Amino acid sequence: MSEVAENHALGTKSDLAGVSDSPITDPASVVKDTKTSGALKKSSRYRTRSLSASSTDSYSSSSSSQEDDVSPREKVQKNSKGSSDFCVRNINQFEFGRREIEIAEQEMPGIMALRRRASDDKPLRNAKIVGCTHINAQTAVLIETLAALGASVRWAACNIYSTQNEVAAALAESGFPVFAWRGETEEDFWWCIDKCVNVENWQPNMILDDGGDATHLMLKKYPAMFKMIKGIVEESVTGVHRLYQLSKAGKLTVPAMNVNDSVTKTKFDNLYSCRESILDSLKRSTDIMFGGKQVVICGYGEVGKGCSQALKGLGCIVYITEIDPICALQASMDGFRVVKLNEVIRTVDVVITATGNKNVVTREHMDKMKNGCIVCNMGHSNTEIDVNSLRTPDLTWEKVRSQVDHVIWPDGKRIILLAEGRLVNLSCSSLPSFVVSITSATQALALIELFNAPPGRYKSDVYLLPKKMDEYVASLHLPTFDAHLTELSDEQAKYMGLNKAGPFKPNYYRY
Amino acid sequence: MSEVAENHALGTKSDLAGVSDSPITDPASVVKDTKTSGALKKSSRYRTRSLSASSTDSYSSSSSSQEDDVSPREKVQKNSKGSSDFCVRNINQFEFGRREIEIAEQEMPGIMALRRRASDDKPLRNAKIVGCTHINAQTAVLIETLAALGASVRWAACNIYSTQNEVAAALAESGFPVFAWRGETEEDFWWCIDKCVNVENWQPNMILDDGGDATHLMLKKYPAMFKMIKGIVEESVTGVHRLYQLSKAGKLTVPAMNVNDSVTKTKFDNLYSCRESILDSLKRSTDIMFGGKQVVICGYGEVGKGCSQALKGLGCIVYITEIDPICALQASMDGFRVVKLNEVIRTVDVVITATGNKNVVTREHMDKMKNGCIVCNMGHSNTEIDVNSLRTPDLTWEKVRSQVDHVIWPDGKRIILLAEGRLVNLSCSSLPSFVVSITSATQALALIELFNAPPGRYKSDVYLLPKKMDEYVASLHLPTFDAHLTELSDEQAKYMGLNKAGPFKPNYYRY
Amino acid sequence: MSEVAENHALGTKSDLAGVSDSPITDPASVVKDTKTSGALKKSSRYRTRSLSASSTDSYSSSSSSQEDDVSPREKVQKNSKGSSDFCVRNINQFEFGRREIEIAEQEMPGIMALRRRASDDKPLRNAKIVGCTHINAQTAVLIETLAALGASVRWAACNIYSTQNEVAAALAESGFPVFAWRGETEEDFWWCIDKCVNVENWQPNMILDDGGDATHLMLKKYPAMFKMIKGIVEESVTGVHRLYQLSKAGKLTVPAMNVNDSVTKTKFDNLYSCRESILDSLKRSTDIMFGGKQVVICGYGEVGKGCSQALKGLGCIVYITEIDPICALQASMDGFRVVKLNEVIRTVDVVITATGNKNVVTREHMDKMKNGCIVCNMGHSNTEIDVNSLRTPDLTWEKVRSQVDHVIWPDGKRIILLAEGRLVNLSCSSLPSFVVSITSATQALALIELFNAPPGRYKSDVYLLPKKMDEYVASLHLPTFDAHLTELSDEQAKYMGLNKAGPFKPNYYRY
Amino acid sequence: MSEVAENHALGTKSDLAGVSDSPITDPASVVKDTKTSGALKKSSRYRTRSLSASSTDSYSSSSSSQEDDVSPREKVQKNSKGSSDFCVRNINQFEFGRREIEIAEQEMPGIMALRRRASDDKPLRNAKIVGCTHINAQTAVLIETLAALGASVRWAACNIYSTQNEVAAALAESGFPVFAWRGETEEDFWWCIDKCVNVENWQPNMILDDGGDATHLMLKKYPAMFKMIKGIVEESVTGVHRLYQLSKAGKLTVPAMNVNDSVTKTKFDNLYSCRESILDSLKRSTDIMFGGKQVVICGYGEVGKGCSQALKGLGCIVYITEIDPICALQASMDGFRVVKLNEVIRTVDVVITATGNKNVVTREHMDKMKNGCIVCNMGHSNTEIDVNSLRTPDLTWEKVRSQVDHVIWPDGKRIILLAEGRLVNLSCSSLPSFVVSITSATQALALIELFNAPPGRYKSDVYLLPKKMDEYVASLHLPTFDAHLTELSDEQAKYMGLNKAGPFKPNYYRY
Repeated sequence: MSEVAENHALGTKSDLAGVSDSPITDPASVVKDTKTSGALKKSSRYRTRSLSASSTDSYSSSSSSQEDDVSPREKVQKNSKGSSDFCVRNINQFEFGRREIEIAEQEMPGIMALRRRASDDKPLRNAKIVGCTHINAQTAVLIETLAALGASVRWAACNIYSTQNEVAAALAESGFPVFAWRGETEEDFWWCIDKCVNVENWQPNMILDDGGDATHLMLKKYPAMFKMIKGIVEESVTGVHRLYQLSKAGKLTVPAMNVNDSVTKTKFDNLYSCRESILDSLKRSTDIMFGGKQVVICGYGEVGKGCSQALKGLGCIVYITEIDPICALQASMDGFRVVKLNEVIRTVDVVITATGNKNVVTREHMDKMKNGCIVCNMGHSNTEIDVNSLRTPDLTWEKVRSQVDHVIWPDGKRIILLAEGRLVNLSCSSLPSFVVSITSATQALALIELFNAPPGRYKSDVYLLPKKMDEYVASLHLPTFDAHLTELSDEQAKYMGLNKAGPFKPNYYRY
Repeated sequence: MSEVAENHALGTKSDLAGVSDSPITDPASVVKDTKTSGALKKSSRYRTRSLSASSTDSYSSSSSSQEDDVSPREKVQKNSKGSSDFCVRNINQFEFGRREIEIAEQEMPGIMALRRRASDDKPLRNAKIVGCTHINAQTAVLIETLAALGASVRWAACNIYSTQNEVAAALAESGFPVFAWRGETEEDFWWCIDKCVNVENWQPNMILDDGGDATHLMLKKYPAMFKMIKGIVEESVTGVHRLYQLSKAGKLTVPAMNVNDSVTKTKFDNLYSCRESILDSLKRSTDIMFGGKQVVICGYGEVGKGCSQALKGLGCIVYITEIDPICALQASMDGFRVVKLNEVIRTVDVVITATGNKNVVTREHMDKMKNGCIVCNMGHSNTEIDVNSLRTPDLTWEKVRSQVDHVIWPDGKRIILLAEGRLVNLSCSSLPSFVVSITSATQALALIELFNAPPGRYKSDVYLLPKKMDEYVASLHLPTFDAHLTELSDEQAKYMGLNKAGPFKPNYYRY
Repeated sequence: MSEVAENHALGTKSDLAGVSDSPITDPASVVKDTKTSGALKKSSRYRTRSLSASSTDSYSSSSSSQEDDVSPREKVQKNSKGSSDFCVRNINQFEFGRREIEIAEQEMPGIMALRRRASDDKPLRNAKIVGCTHINAQTAVLIETLAALGASVRWAACNIYSTQNEVAAALAESGFPVFAWRGETEEDFWWCIDKCVNVENWQPNMILDDGGDATHLMLKKYPAMFKMIKGIVEESVTGVHRLYQLSKAGKLTVPAMNVNDSVTKTKFDNLYSCRESILDSLKRSTDIMFGGKQVVICGYGEVGKGCSQALKGLGCIVYITEIDPICALQASMDGFRVVKLNEVIRTVDVVITATGNKNVVTREHMDKMKNGCIVCNMGHSNTEIDVNSLRTPDLTWEKVRSQVDHVIWPDGKRIILLAEGRLVNLSCSSLPSFVVSITSATQALALIELFNAPPGRYKSDVYLLPKKMDEYVASLHLPTFDAHLTELSDEQAKYMGLNKAGPFKPNYYRY
Repeated sequence: MSEVAENHALGTKSDLAGVSDSPITDPASVVKDTKTSGALKKSSRYRTRSLSASSTDSYSSSSSSQEDDVSPREKVQKNSKGSSDFCVRNINQFEFGRREIEIAEQEMPGIMALRRRASDDKPLRNAKIVGCTHINAQTAVLIETLAALGASVRWAACNIYSTQNEVAAALAESGFPVFAWRGETEEDFWWCIDKCVNVENWQPNMILDDGGDATHLMLKKYPAMFKMIKGIVEESVTGVHRLYQLSKAGKLTVPAMNVNDSVTKTKFDNLYSCRESILDSLKRSTDIMFGGKQVVICGYGEVGKGCSQALKGLGCIVYITEIDPICALQASMDGFRVVKLNEVIRTVDVVITATGNKNVVTREHMDKMKNGCIVCNMGHSNTEIDVNSLRTPDLTWEKVRSQVDHVIWPDGKRIILLAEGRLVNLSCSSLPSFVVSITSATQALALIELFNAPPGRYKSDVYLLPKKMDEYVASLHLPTFDAHLTELSDEQAKYMGLNKAGPFKPNYYRY
């Protein structure tokens, strides 16, 4: 019980904040949410880019112009085996999509290892999964892994813009009932999910959700079907928050797994990813030379720690702002001056937000910045920089590159605003497939755990992934680094009071 | 309830391991424990060294030779105010002790800030504290702070060797009933604690313990008095484990605070301290040049992380061994090869253990090490290196310095064993007063919290320090770094769902 | 004399190597050289990208398609002041070019500071400079600075592909006789230079050269005019080598300044630039995640040092190969394993060459690489990786992005070759304007020094920039970092035997 | 000629400075110099400490008290072979000295490798060397290596305090004519050198000097003998300066080798040594916790670079002061704020000088420092901190440890002065044997080069060690790190224009 109780507190601050503005009660309002949060959600995994992204990009622009105006829903398409149980933009694009998937497979060692190791056991035999996620080469690797582990699946997109059409075609060609294309209308969006849920001879028993839309549709529209579900796996902050709200309201009648806060996934999504993407984002968008630059980073959580480590490593002088004295003390011990933003705002060359809070950088701050100062956001949402305060008649905006605006003061001073204050790492760099591999393996294991758990292990509540599974996700990715684990001897395991197979740490361990 | 439940799991692995060998049931067995674990306990805070350590040292040698053979218990001493409610080696040594305390005060900004801030409020007014800790200049600063906050105290040593006699004299001269001297017998040890507990007109209501001896004596010998206690604060791994055992056995009738696992204290005791002390320990004992040396560190927990970061920073090539795939993945992402010990044992220049486990470095490993290899332990106990396996007739031991042994194989190969496998950082370097300041402030706040808590907040169980207090300890130490915290605006606090004064993070936050 | 003598040895190894393949004797052969080395020379400063590169790019493609087929030499164009003493693609593009120049000015603090400080003195009054360099926004800042310092100039391009047409238009509109456009024929190339040299009422007295073409044309075609030259400033490895050859052959009749080996310029061109561009190049081209990757860097000179520092900082495990024991010892002391390439070739994820040598990575090595290994070159020329050895029938090349080829072995193994073995930082990242600012300021000061030197200070030989001027270039760039120099007191200067204004170090100082 | 000319400028600034105060003209004045600079010279290699330093220490104190008052010059001693051609404190101490030498041998891989490789060739056969250096275990390894290479030697101490008597005894016992003991008088000092120079049947042909005293004595007192010398090897700043002065004055009649400025030696003496010793010095003397401390380092030469890198690595915030804009720019690019000392003097926790200049830290600065500020010197001499300005009646000095003084202002403010402003790394830490190994190998190779050079290669002037020999010294130390050099192929060597055996870099290469 205590774990459940604890889980109720798991929504992060930003999570709570983000949703308190848009309480979700029914699919209709969800639609609105989808609309309003489109920009954010669109970006969340959308920019994942494989080696062949450039070809994708070139295709994309061409295809979007070539996409005929007929809605996929109105077209009749068949794959080469004669099936038409899917709805994608153009089934004929499957070859290019298949190549994309193959390249992604090479870069996702963990999920591929899981596929190999478990394909004999088929731990998802008889699982019938409704999936609702972004649809791109990386998620295709996940989908095909779930099938290889024995599951039947039906899949829709969790975002109206993020589907890679060729990948959807490749999945459809391989026999997966996929309902998704780039540029769906809102009505299309719900129609697609409905096609995954409500189809003859199909009683789904698992949901893999990214944002909570499949869960909500089923709960609202097919409550009887929902009751038959054995488990829900949810990876987004927003979706997890919805689940906790449902649980609190007593409406969650099935166990759910919050994979958003798994240890391994969290470290990779934050510390390790941001350590690299802050450099990439700034370099690609501004060609800045890092050496000697003065940078202030607002927030010294995992994201702030990653950013500051990387920038210090390249010769930047980094200042930190913090509200939390423990994190502030960590920053001090790591060699950073902890300041109030106003102390350095006139002298820094770059301002980076990573707090999850709102209005951390205000118009007043930006009025004080020096000419050429770069401002960008690495935090949770697009609220950290008060971009709206810059949309006043006295200031001129000049777009100098995609994702790069010069905002010009009457005296000629320019500040360089990246991605209009949205997440700069999602807008101006790419998410390595390796990070997606971590997330996908986490999702797959959560499905396996919920599907195979003995009755009674999980109640109708929201759970964190068991530490042992978290450790397993990590272990799947060690061969990439040719890392060799040491095994406990029997004597050592006994001395430590541990099972030789793990878990190796208490739940409160901080890593 | 959930926090309590969780707390029961708080003993670390090493904790569980260490004590399972010596279950404690009554003061008599405690005595044995004191004896057997003397070497370990002696070291735990004993080597703390202020700037004036050399004078201490010089005194020490002289004083130990000059110490008359009469037991302090048989001498009649009075301080300058005429009190004789104390028992120390030599009250006349107080001046030197006072100077030591004054120097320590300058290096303990947090506890001194607490003294200043709270001395008007007197949050410990009417608190009657039995203290049982090491007695040195740093703890004297704590004791005098507790008094400044309103408490009455009586104090004994938690270790028969670790008392700085001059400091004890200075405390006695200032009117504190102190019962401690270096070189107590076991009988003396319990007599001293008894003098702190059982004295006319004294009903203690708080215990500050380091190792659990005062707690146990009172519980066993004065159970009625024990029932009147409002709270126990315990900082040692061993003492905390005893408390959890008492709680489990239903014998803990008062609330207890485990300060050993407080966030701030833990970070400083492990990551930040060890990052510096590994360098200091190796340099002072072996004059090793770090650049280009190959080092293997067994264990990538906080201690291993600190050691590896420091050594990498000075040009060592560091390898890591791990049993936990999550920590192994962290090591990989931090740029370390993760290997099995046998893969590198023939080539490395230094082997460091930091696992908390036993027999991590075996005779078989040491047989393979190359000539001149340095072996030392930074982990919890003296079990990690199987030193006993080196005490065979074929090997020759040659002590080349204090704490440095050459163990010589028949073919002339030497390995350099530091501190005979005990904690090298306690044996070969010193603990900065700043780290002790963190611990002392944590202890003082725990006492304040338990003493002032409204009835019902704490049951008869073992608790972690509330996060808000942990944050307060951190905040007390920020001025040392001239670090300036940012305050949340009302709007921001609301957005984050936080109180502007903290706590700022959920309990599961990993820092 | 000794400095001159030393200077003769200044060509770097790669320098010697690069040119020994293409001895230059007359303009005709230079033309061939220009052709054959087009790919290399094109890249050398061509990819410099300002903030508005994307707009440039978009323009570029459009403009290249819109460029009418009429050769600029056949068109009659006038700028707004009525002058037609220039030849550019389209004078009407000047506005966009002017904006590019203005943005570049903001990012080139050193050369702009020099412009401000010296514009009253006009140290180049009466200087008549023939310039032959890349023509882009950054060089425009240099050209306009030279004019502001009093010089008259005529300018041609040193490369048939690298001219930014709009910038050339902006210069022409501002009255500079510029003769350059993108896509010149070889005949155009020499015609343009000739127009800068041989025009009525123009006796040039200085040459600013990048590659030696203006120098050679004048020497060969207008020897009498060449004798009137007061000095030549040359910045390229190739051009410097030509000068040393001329000097050796006794044909150099004027003083020449080798700015290629100036301290400040060298550090920025190599260590500081490459430290950042290796990350940028790898990330932009492959989206690699750095953490935990094993990388071997061939060569531990300035470039290798920069690359290894940056990659280690982001969690890579870096190996070094070296031929020079001093550099190898430095690598060891900096914490890198020094290996032979064959020791690690089967396990590394990335291979980077930075030696200046040829065939450092051979087909044999590439046969052993693991699937997915990335191979790229950060060294001097395109010889380090034996790319030709990969053009065999058994291997398949697959271009997956611009500058990214997969080379596929019969068993399916792929290696990822970047920029076909050419300089990956020039091909896949951009050169910060700040680095160009350093070079430009160095060139301008060299011109000032040679033009104003008292008779006899410089003979007809090749010189390094005086250290004092090197220091001045550095000082011009310190305000960017808000760095504050300390001044020697008279007493201190006397004690050190130094002039308070510098130079501060002996010539052999290693920095 | 050019190299010679250049060599004349090789004295470093500090070098020039140091000696301009004490011009040396004859042995008499040298005596005075020895006296006045005793404190400095004493420290220069004296504190080299092997693993067994503690035993040395204990011996030292005892032996100094036990040393009988009879001067060694008045005692008759014989070694076990019956020779009495030596003069040491006590020949019977040889066993302990031998053990010290054996331990040193293990830690000096380079010089030992040279001994092994060249002992067949005997490149010093017929060399007759007068040596005048510190006499300790490390130099004993050098001396015995020279003998193994074929040389005859006679040896005196270059400092009246630095002789390790047991080591001298061990050398004497092994048959080396050693004339040295700790605590020589000045007359003893010159008597000892004289005994090495002027003895029947001994015409020395080489001098190995450390400070120039043997050179000067021979030049002044035995000019005819001096003319027969084939070469001088000098390693000290002071001695090198004397040689350049002699050369300038036309009095140097033999070739001399300045090994003080060899590349490898310089890097190890400055960058690599100081990177470690700054940490060790501060930690051993003050037990400072580095994390979060603000430190200003005056001077960003090799020493400053080493110190700043190490301190930054441990979480210090480091500021740099510089007079040289190139070094200042380097500091900026390396991530350090470049400030004037006054900008930070009130806030820093530690001030470190590394300039070679005088009065860099003045009383005015120290008046502004905050309570507890640590002040120390890592630079060349004891002039950088104006310690004399602290010896005023208003300030109280309190020695709290050996090498640690508190200087107390009237308001109670204390600053912590280390080693009274002398070199803190020599006073408060130890020099690793590995660094001495580099120096010793350099000296031995310089002797070999001068002794075997064909006539005419070296004139009567001061030379730097040929780069190829510098490279050889480095190569001798690579096996310590298991570093594997790559060899050039014939084709590559030709392409680079290099000999496959080196040298690999031009003389001006900066490393």
